[in-house]
Amino acid sequence: MVSWNNLDTLDAYKELQAVKEVNLQEVMSGESGAERVKKYSVPMAAGLAYNFASKKVDDDILAVLAKLAEEAQLIEKYEELYNGAMINTGEKRLVLHQLCRGQLGKDVIADGVNKREFYVDQQNRVAAFANKVHSGEIVNAEGEAFTTVVQIGIGGSDLGPRALYMALENWAKANQTFKMEAKFISNVDPDDAAGVLAGTDVAHTIFVLVSKSGTTLETLTNEAFVKDALKKAGLDPAKHMVAVTSETSPLAKSADYLDAFFMDDYIGGRYSSSAAVGGAVLSLAFGPEIFARILSGAAEADRLATLKNPLENAAMLDALIGVYERNVLGYPYTTVLPYSQALIRFPAHLQQCDMESNGKSVNRFGEPVNYVTGPVIFGEPGTNGQHSFYQLLHQGTNIVPIQFVGFKNSQIGTDVVIEGSTSQQKLCANVAAQIMAFACGKSDENLNKNFEGGRPSSIIIGDQLTPESLGALLAHFENKVMFQGFLWNLNSFDQEGVQLGKVLAKRVLAHETDGALRAYSDLLNI
Amino acid sequence: MVSWNNLDTLDAYKELQAVKEVNLQEVMSGESGAERVKKYSVPMAAGLAYNFASKKVDDDILAVLAKLAEEAQLIEKYEELYNGAMINTGEKRLVLHQLCRGQLGKDVIADGVNKREFYVDQQNRVAAFANKVHSGEIVNAEGEAFTTVVQIGIGGSDLGPRALYMALENWAKANQTFKMEAKFISNVDPDDAAGVLAGTDVAHTIFVLVSKSGTTLETLTNEAFVKDALKKAGLDPAKHMVAVTSETSPLAKSADYLDAFFMDDYIGGRYSSSAAVGGAVLSLAFGPEIFARILSGAAEADRLATLKNPLENAAMLDALIGVYERNVLGYPYTTVLPYSQALIRFPAHLQQCDMESNGKSVNRFGEPVNYVTGPVIFGEPGTNGQHSFYQLLHQGTNIVPIQFVGFKNSQIGTDVVIEGSTSQQKLCANVAAQIMAFACGKSDENLNKNFEGGRPSSIIIGDQLTPESLGALLAHFENKVMFQGFLWNLNSFDQEGVQLGKVLAKRVLAHETDGALRAYSDLLNI
Repeated sequence: MVSWNNLDTLDAYKELQAVKEVNLQEVMSGESGAERVKKYSVPMAAGLAYNFASKKVDDDILAVLAKLAEEAQLIEKYEELYNGAMINTGEKRLVLHQLCRGQLGKDVIADGVNKREFYVDQQNRVAAFANKVHSGEIVNAEGEAFTTVVQIGIGGSDLGPRALYMALENWAKANQTFKMEAKFISNVDPDDAAGVLAGTDVAHTIFVLVSKSGTTLETLTNEAFVKDALKKAGLDPAKHMVAVTSETSPLAKSADYLDAFFMDDYIGGRYSSSAAVGGAVLSLAFGPEIFARILSGAAEADRLATLKNPLENAAMLDALIGVYERNVLGYPYTTVLPYSQALIRFPAHLQQCDMESNGKSVNRFGEPVNYVTGPVIFGEPGTNGQHSFYQLLHQGTNIVPIQFVGFKNSQIGTDVVIEGSTSQQKLCANVAAQIMAFACGKSDENLNKNFEGGRPSSIIIGDQLTPESLGALLAHFENKVMFQGFLWNLNSFDQEGVQLGKVLAKRVLAHETDGALRAYSDLLNI
Repeated sequence: MVSWNNLDTLDAYKELQAVKEVNLQEVMSGESGAERVKKYSVPMAAGLAYNFASKKVDDDILAVLAKLAEEAQLIEKYEELYNGAMINTGEKRLVLHQLCRGQLGKDVIADGVNKREFYVDQQNRVAAFANKVHSGEIVNAEGEAFTTVVQIGIGGSDLGPRALYMALENWAKANQTFKMEAKFISNVDPDDAAGVLAGTDVAHTIFVLVSKSGTTLETLTNEAFVKDALKKAGLDPAKHMVAVTSETSPLAKSADYLDAFFMDDYIGGRYSSSAAVGGAVLSLAFGPEIFARILSGAAEADRLATLKNPLENAAMLDALIGVYERNVLGYPYTTVLPYSQALIRFPAHLQQCDMESNGKSVNRFGEPVNYVTGPVIFGEPGTNGQHSFYQLLHQGTNIVPIQFVGFKNSQIGTDVVIEGSTSQQKLCANVAAQIMAFACGKSDENLNKNFEGGRPSSIIIGDQLTPESLGALLAHFENKVMFQGFLWNLNSFDQEGVQLGKVLAKRVLAHETDGALRAYSDLLNI
């Protein structure tokens, strides 16, 4: 049996607070630095590696982190999760997104169904549908092929699928697996839907309506918006829409859709890219076999996350180092900086995944915790960020821990040699240079040009951003967040913090307000 | 004469630390809350208003902030700046971006030139060029019209112009002023240029190459990338490119470009959207008169920023409240949440503007400061963020101050009524609801559903996002950052923190490295 305890009750945590801090400038200088780069690396799924040489850890701290992992029973808790325990205590739900990608443990039977079989069945249904669209078996009323897919969803039904689509769009084109252009409508701002529709040939478009509950305000509103546009174009919405929802939702068996694909309450929105929420749009855009390759990279990452030794389990080590940085070193943020333009929206997805999961002040039993939990997550691709906010990262008054991501090869392969190097080499040279600039700095008598260093970063390195490595990245961060939730003793799988705003917004729309809320509503002409 | 002193030497700052903290739940409840919403509002340019009712201030704190503004000589320093003093001490440069928008003070003569005349002259040259492209006087080698403009630039030559383009794209289409589609290439990642070019009809495209120095690695590399593509398409690059640069740069008088438009060293990259850096691409995309309307909104904001009374000067008040939150209340971040999908990249621009300007640890004399300076800035549009990271903002262990932006009307005007309200009303209802949820929270016996409130926010409200209000927003934040730099006694106009990485990257590419940098380079196959 596992026991769920607050972080500050663990002996290893107390030990961690007393252990000597690493002087990063010192350990990363000279040959000792080179040794660390070679030694402090953990293999990940799909050929990726997590290098943490420039984090403020050494063998002593790693030993305490390993004790902390054991005392917090991280692996045992993960086992409980994938074997079907009710880990989401607040909503009394299992947590099964990993089961979309593979079977790590026992059969999970819930609601009288083998859940792995249920998810695979939905994947097969999505694949069959996508294949029929691609082969021309499913066409529009004029008998013409569909060329575009537009996802209507918000939050987890938007950010993850959108980030993954953008991550593989160029790769798919370069590898002749690109099938349909994908677009996304999310915001209740009417200009979002109107703007996307204005640039879309709706007669050749399939809309994927994504709402687990079938009650999400933004999504239902945007569905009505799109149906309006389809009708105005003389088209039958039912011939242009599919639904991704739960079997019990009002959308599930409606005649309003070409088809409906199912997920369930055991997959949280921000973890649903691996389910039909990501599967439908990505299978339509790139083909079901590409989506399957994303899942296989993620499944491999999920398996590696079962390893007890943090030095073999990158997600767990990343989580442990993050907690050390947050709770012992006191850094209130983490920035994710992918040196890959294709990952431009990946930080926005991680921002949700991390901040919505662990941005909480009470433990899984509803008791206040006496320590800080999830940090603020933000990021943009390099080298763009170097010409933007890196100034603060290098010379600001606070330290911001960094998570770099880099690949040896580009996706498209077109490149130019300028001053003896390709763009890809310049990209990689820049990320290597940044790590060292942050770690070691450079003294200058003019303090305005002085870099104090001591600013920790890690880097995940891969050969190329492919479906497999993308899936591995996705699962790495999901699992990191999961392990951090275990360490902080949180329920990482509910999101009660989003409820109050919804309730008050309804009251505003019903004109049932007074006081300041009434006054704000007046200012906004509602 | 103004005197430049560190924040912690000012009497009003000491007073500010001693003043009683506001209980936000209390003051925002009931009728007193409604009163605050009506009273705590400052008119801004272009019909915008800055409402700070839900910030943790009251009349007592505002009185001390006014003293602080006076003691720090904020208005006098701004006067020095726009009258042409050498405010950028590190690089020994004037700071003249406001002069692109209007003449606030004396004639500024530098390098033997009246600078206002110089900037207006460049605007006129850009306008004439754009008009010729639109009228068909400037065409491609086949005599066909140009339909697309692609900006090649990074950092300030990318984020601001891109954010402004996205902010007005739908507005321009709805108002029949849309002329050419704009795209952007920034990253040295070869997939950025290759991806944009793959979707672009280069035969009908003008490329705007933007580099003040004419030496930016990424931009020159991407220029070569684009020239390669043009030549492969059988086109003459010189007939498809214009340059935006300084008169002394290698790009200035080259036969390689259709034309060249000039800026100078007195306009920092992150402040250059008002100069030809934004002017060329936006005038081509929307017409020069639309760009002029952006500048006029900004100019009005610049004039309002000269007012001594913080309660009439929104940029200064925003700056003062931000310093109170950062240095007295101790919040290490600020999030910018526009309820407008069109502003999707505006937070990324502000992230640069703010973090690159004030992310510094030494004062303008190169002496270390004993207080924290610029916060981390991040943000995404609402309502999207509500379904993502707002969980942490509502229930996380740290308080994140919020800057909302909202408009009463959409840009396109197409809308649907669902459950008795339009999408635009739902959007506005949500931002009003969020402000109150953050400020007042809601008690619940189940602490997992408890909202403690006390989370401060302000909101900028406008009728519609138009060229004028967009310009006003842009200048508001630039001026806020300027006033905060004055308060912290920083030089907000250099960026020495970006240099070390460039130096080290060159060394990597020249294979002149050892130790850890060599080891990282090996891992990345350089």
